[in-house]
Amino acid sequence: MPAQAAIVGIGHTEFAKNIERPEQRLAVEASLAALSDAGLAPSDVDGMVRFDMETTEEVQLQRALGVTNLRFFASTGYGGGGGCGTMALAQAAVVSGQADVVLAWRARKRGSGGRPWAKASHRVPAEKQWYVPFGLVRPVDQVAILARRMMYEVGVTEEMFGSVAVQIRRHANRNHDAIMFDRKMDLDDYLASRFVSEPLRVPDCCLETDGALAVVVTSLERARDLRHTPAVIAAAQMGTGPECVNMTNYHGADLLAGPGSQVAPHLWRIAGIGPADVDCAQLYDAFTPLVLQSLEDYGFCARGEAGPFCADGNLSIDGGTLPTCTAGGGLSEAYVHGYNLILEGVRQVRGDSVNQVEGCEHVLVTSGNAVPTSAIVLRRDR
Amino acid sequence: MPAQAAIVGIGHTEFAKNIERPEQRLAVEASLAALSDAGLAPSDVDGMVRFDMETTEEVQLQRALGVTNLRFFASTGYGGGGGCGTMALAQAAVVSGQADVVLAWRARKRGSGGRPWAKASHRVPAEKQWYVPFGLVRPVDQVAILARRMMYEVGVTEEMFGSVAVQIRRHANRNHDAIMFDRKMDLDDYLASRFVSEPLRVPDCCLETDGALAVVVTSLERARDLRHTPAVIAAAQMGTGPECVNMTNYHGADLLAGPGSQVAPHLWRIAGIGPADVDCAQLYDAFTPLVLQSLEDYGFCARGEAGPFCADGNLSIDGGTLPTCTAGGGLSEAYVHGYNLILEGVRQVRGDSVNQVEGCEHVLVTSGNAVPTSAIVLRRDR
Repeated sequence: MPAQAAIVGIGHTEFAKNIERPEQRLAVEASLAALSDAGLAPSDVDGMVRFDMETTEEVQLQRALGVTNLRFFASTGYGGGGGCGTMALAQAAVVSGQADVVLAWRARKRGSGGRPWAKASHRVPAEKQWYVPFGLVRPVDQVAILARRMMYEVGVTEEMFGSVAVQIRRHANRNHDAIMFDRKMDLDDYLASRFVSEPLRVPDCCLETDGALAVVVTSLERARDLRHTPAVIAAAQMGTGPECVNMTNYHGADLLAGPGSQVAPHLWRIAGIGPADVDCAQLYDAFTPLVLQSLEDYGFCARGEAGPFCADGNLSIDGGTLPTCTAGGGLSEAYVHGYNLILEGVRQVRGDSVNQVEGCEHVLVTSGNAVPTSAIVLRRDR
Repeated sequence: MPAQAAIVGIGHTEFAKNIERPEQRLAVEASLAALSDAGLAPSDVDGMVRFDMETTEEVQLQRALGVTNLRFFASTGYGGGGGCGTMALAQAAVVSGQADVVLAWRARKRGSGGRPWAKASHRVPAEKQWYVPFGLVRPVDQVAILARRMMYEVGVTEEMFGSVAVQIRRHANRNHDAIMFDRKMDLDDYLASRFVSEPLRVPDCCLETDGALAVVVTSLERARDLRHTPAVIAAAQMGTGPECVNMTNYHGADLLAGPGSQVAPHLWRIAGIGPADVDCAQLYDAFTPLVLQSLEDYGFCARGEAGPFCADGNLSIDGGTLPTCTAGGGLSEAYVHGYNLILEGVRQVRGDSVNQVEGCEHVLVTSGNAVPTSAIVLRRDR
């Protein structure tokens, strides 16, 4: 039996627009919350993992927290694709003996403005030269063209996209921490909402949120001495295919498959389970089409079946076969590059989600599909 | 016996000033050279690790090389401190089963200008606000103040710094790939050279080089089926102390110790050897004082003894007790963020360095001290 790692602490700040404290302060608050949840002190931390977009460097967070001997630090790229990648790095650090207690975090004030595409100048760097000059400027434009292809190729309807947004919103309506906690929405509301980039409407798009989240990972052996049921990282895997170009999904041979389709076989092999064994899923939902794509990439649905699967209510905690984004996800809880999905995966494995799946043993958490992506399988420690 | 990883391929471009090809092209050339050296194809690669300063993203290199299923990617920060950190990540990826064959690289056209400090505006970000406004603008200024402290506190002399530069230059004089191959230098030449930032002179400072280098890492099991003697990564460790502020070394309690002093105990424990077992060292030599600091941080010399140790000729392949930077290092072979030190470490373990240490079994390679740092111990596979 090889060494294993587990998530032992989670924490986050409030989710809101226009939080006044700086991102570094939010990172500190979330980190202290996660360490407190784990019953560990900053002096226990000897590894740190972050998104490369993070504005706080490890050495800054280290000093603010009081971490004295940091011996592992690394970052993952590709925005929202890197979320579970931080867990993969934390697992690798622990399993290889390079660190004992790894703190990972994401702090972002995306709800305070700062839309990166609004800063685009006449110089379009690197990959972006292949699609920005043709009008695909915002992430929503880049995903809208995938949505259109889904509609054309396998008959996905607006109502199918809407069903994703509606079911995830209902989960948020039971989560006091969710930004959309008190904003109910049904399919009629969805269909009456305005387009942002046709066929995608406002509720197809994630929130724009200020906030920070943090996760603490250690060895399973040490995890068993701590206060919570360990959420074992049964598998962690990043992945990208040969023609993955940032958020655009139309350079490869298969116009509907995302890089999740390349992650899936490795992930299931390493975890030793398959999609049928997953009790609930936290699928990256920056835009509703990405949920459909991930359902097919990870093998929950055959090609073209994800739309009807969603329309049939299968994502719902109330009778669905695969409760998905059970805290409200990026669409309705908060959008901090999908990091809240990891925390909700841990809660489900611990058994203390506000939308708890009875007897939950295995959770799939995915990060931004359509960019180089990552995913983890969490397992309840027996 | 836990899973182990080894370096199986190394490659680099020429080292020069003002190479016309772009950095991405250089990255491709070095990568193909390293894969060819390993006897592997791009299609074997499923992991990539890079410096976060790298201008080429994994997906770009992946497409250019023809890597089809990339399933691990991550980066290390802190400039030259991250070199061996890329090896730590590669090892962690392989040992944790997240990737089988990891390609790591550094491509940089530092010799074509682009001094970052020359772009400093009136806005000094983050850490830099603590020292740039006080005149410590260039890296050489930041290290010069460490050099002064060494002179004041333990009696290091200019001749001691010079002896480092002279011995490493002699190694380069036997290496056709070294930029300083045909430029001999003795201590008189050194003492006659101009100051860049007192007490540091031109030969105390690394070269400014265009070039790229790449390394291929896989499991020791697979390595044994490949063409070269595997260079086992016996230990890989990053590290930084509580008060490490970028290139400035004067915020901590001990003004002479670098973060290498925090890496060392973990590194030796994991490798199962000590400094006395090291046959040669590739110590990060962006500036000569960093070599002295590393000799003490890693336990080769007691406090204050590194200067006399160097002045006594101990770094030399010709009779020294610890031949150091045997290909000419950053001072006289090339400065590409210290990545050439890793390649020379592999050559020594394989037995094919131009300045070969007889019967070399263990090599220490270190990366930028004074920034959050990293180091590896390479072991010849028996």
